[in-house]
Amino acid sequence: MITLITDFGISDPYVGIMKGVMLSVNPSAVIIDITHEIEPQDVSGAAYCIYSSYRYFPPGSIHVVVVDPGVGTHRSIIAVLMAGHYFLAPDNGVLSLILKSGKADAIINVENDSYFLKPVSQTFHGRDIFSPVAGHLSKGLAVDLLGPGIKTNQALCLDLPMPYRSQSGAIVGAVIGVDRFGNLITNIDHPFIVRTFGPFNDRHLNIQVGDQQITGLSACYRDVEPQALLAIVGSMEFVEISVNCGNASEFCGESKGSIITITAVGGQ
Amino acid sequence: MITLITDFGISDPYVGIMKGVMLSVNPSAVIIDITHEIEPQDVSGAAYCIYSSYRYFPPGSIHVVVVDPGVGTHRSIIAVLMAGHYFLAPDNGVLSLILKSGKADAIINVENDSYFLKPVSQTFHGRDIFSPVAGHLSKGLAVDLLGPGIKTNQALCLDLPMPYRSQSGAIVGAVIGVDRFGNLITNIDHPFIVRTFGPFNDRHLNIQVGDQQITGLSACYRDVEPQALLAIVGSMEFVEISVNCGNASEFCGESKGSIITITAVGGQ
Amino acid sequence: MITLITDFGISDPYVGIMKGVMLSVNPSAVIIDITHEIEPQDVSGAAYCIYSSYRYFPPGSIHVVVVDPGVGTHRSIIAVLMAGHYFLAPDNGVLSLILKSGKADAIINVENDSYFLKPVSQTFHGRDIFSPVAGHLSKGLAVDLLGPGIKTNQALCLDLPMPYRSQSGAIVGAVIGVDRFGNLITNIDHPFIVRTFGPFNDRHLNIQVGDQQITGLSACYRDVEPQALLAIVGSMEFVEISVNCGNASEFCGESKGSIITITAVGGQ
Repeated sequence: MITLITDFGISDPYVGIMKGVMLSVNPSAVIIDITHEIEPQDVSGAAYCIYSSYRYFPPGSIHVVVVDPGVGTHRSIIAVLMAGHYFLAPDNGVLSLILKSGKADAIINVENDSYFLKPVSQTFHGRDIFSPVAGHLSKGLAVDLLGPGIKTNQALCLDLPMPYRSQSGAIVGAVIGVDRFGNLITNIDHPFIVRTFGPFNDRHLNIQVGDQQITGLSACYRDVEPQALLAIVGSMEFVEISVNCGNASEFCGESKGSIITITAVGGQ
Repeated sequence: MITLITDFGISDPYVGIMKGVMLSVNPSAVIIDITHEIEPQDVSGAAYCIYSSYRYFPPGSIHVVVVDPGVGTHRSIIAVLMAGHYFLAPDNGVLSLILKSGKADAIINVENDSYFLKPVSQTFHGRDIFSPVAGHLSKGLAVDLLGPGIKTNQALCLDLPMPYRSQSGAIVGAVIGVDRFGNLITNIDHPFIVRTFGPFNDRHLNIQVGDQQITGLSACYRDVEPQALLAIVGSMEFVEISVNCGNASEFCGESKGSIITITAVGGQ
Repeated sequence: MITLITDFGISDPYVGIMKGVMLSVNPSAVIIDITHEIEPQDVSGAAYCIYSSYRYFPPGSIHVVVVDPGVGTHRSIIAVLMAGHYFLAPDNGVLSLILKSGKADAIINVENDSYFLKPVSQTFHGRDIFSPVAGHLSKGLAVDLLGPGIKTNQALCLDLPMPYRSQSGAIVGAVIGVDRFGNLITNIDHPFIVRTFGPFNDRHLNIQVGDQQITGLSACYRDVEPQALLAIVGSMEFVEISVNCGNASEFCGESKGSIITITAVGGQ
């Protein structure tokens, strides 16, 4: 099984061509789109996307991430084996969250061009390198035949914004994405709240986003009236700001990068 | 075979994650997207979509519809077996047209959480309930193992707008959707016209939409000049208002909810 | 394997319905979307799309192109076998570039309605003709059983804009498409430049697009500063105008149909 995350969109034939190349190598590959609507060249957006998705696929899956502003330069391409999953991506930090989340069993610099489509173009490595290599991996090719191994600290890692505790004791985080429903997805996960404030009652939290204040975490959207704002622990364990039957991003006028502050009401 | 209709869009990883869960349960499931572009929380739009699509899939298909504003509340999830097809959806009326169209062989309240992904989140039952249950059904699980049976009148049914005959004898219907080409798709099907006006000559009908009048039903788009308005019986048997090589919605300034009136020219 | 190019978009259920019909005929068909976002009724856009995509799929693939403003009229549907690939499309010129690129082994007028879904609607041949016929071809049906053969010059061919050499010696071409990244894709391929100017050094070319001048062809996007304009031979061998980490279409204010002129600096 091969999954795909790209910033290619779905209007151009690029994604279809990649699938054609994969299926030419391995006609029985099963290819699943995660998304092709990453903002053009948004490496950190793709980093969150692959990190929150891969674990729902069966072990042995090959996850291909092609958000690659450096295509055609000397940036490397890496193949990572971790927790039974394979990841294939440019070495530009798009696998940062994956690599920070555990110990990789292998990180390989993909250099063995006998698995590439030739001639290799300077603008579409998705077609010429990522797809045929993914096709060969899906046929059982051992990952270490793709090139030499490197160490984790040799792979490029992004400094993605992490939540922290301010001097006043509040948790300060950021909106890392807005989904189709207008939900503001933050980088503050629930375990971080528990570690910061102790086993605190979720109803005694105060969540501030822009000039809006929300009291407590809701258990479901309908805990509040239609069109009212709420905060909830979303399906990825991150705090999300939502509007019941509405669009929180429009409601608050906030979007990616906005600051979220959480305080414990009445102290800890 | 599993089909999917959701309002999740294709920019977020939600649909890909659902497929990962399905394929983790049944790696040989074939998953087909019908659409993920239902307007957020538009239950009636999804009701028309599944009703007009399912019959083109082979018997035994499992149709999953996740347009679910009540996720996380006590609304039920139902599994329906009808005409050899399985339907899995929230009990919010999204299967109204299916349930009204015939006699179901089974309607099951999906309660048996041994087929769920745990812990079940309060915001993403698509991942935690619909997908693993669909995966198990596709492996041959008997639908009545999912929970207790209910009667048709216990399932929630929407009052979707139906065409009717006015006191003056005209057929009054509504636009239920606008497709990518700008075609105005009405809820008036051709058999209803025949039942109302008798085996009338289609060319002697008068179709009114907004301040536009159309005489007769065309046999194909090119029956009229380029950029001219026409009415035609569409591929779903419903009357549609179109513009040859153009966009009827823009041409007429009409959209979902607009009223359509059909009269028989010169009486019956 | 069946590939799909349509102008149906992905919001309506049309594409899903086509797949249902194909899989009803052949449950083991593998169906790959190339794109459904061809501009409504843009036959020449679809002609470029299929021409630049098909070769990346395995021989024996069946390529279905449904961009069909003449649906319901007496326009023919043709099935073409060329270079081991099958093509199924309306006879409206959408296969022009395919047919001009070599000698077809067969061109068939698809008339044998025993492979159609009946009754055949006048608005959705994608469902009623293209899909079941593709399903049967994917099961091994001999293409000449679909109808009588015709000659290449009996198929409709579009006069697509071709690059030419002007009296002053410059190459004059046009932008034939803009991709998601804003790259301006021209109809000038690199072999045409070599044939025109001889084995000229790519760095000694002058590329004019609108009021912008570019000197030389770059080897990769990062040959220039971020946000700077460049010209590059793209992955399809055509000259493309790009902006490193930016959008050339917005940068230049140019789009589909814009004129591109290439001159050899200092003569040949």
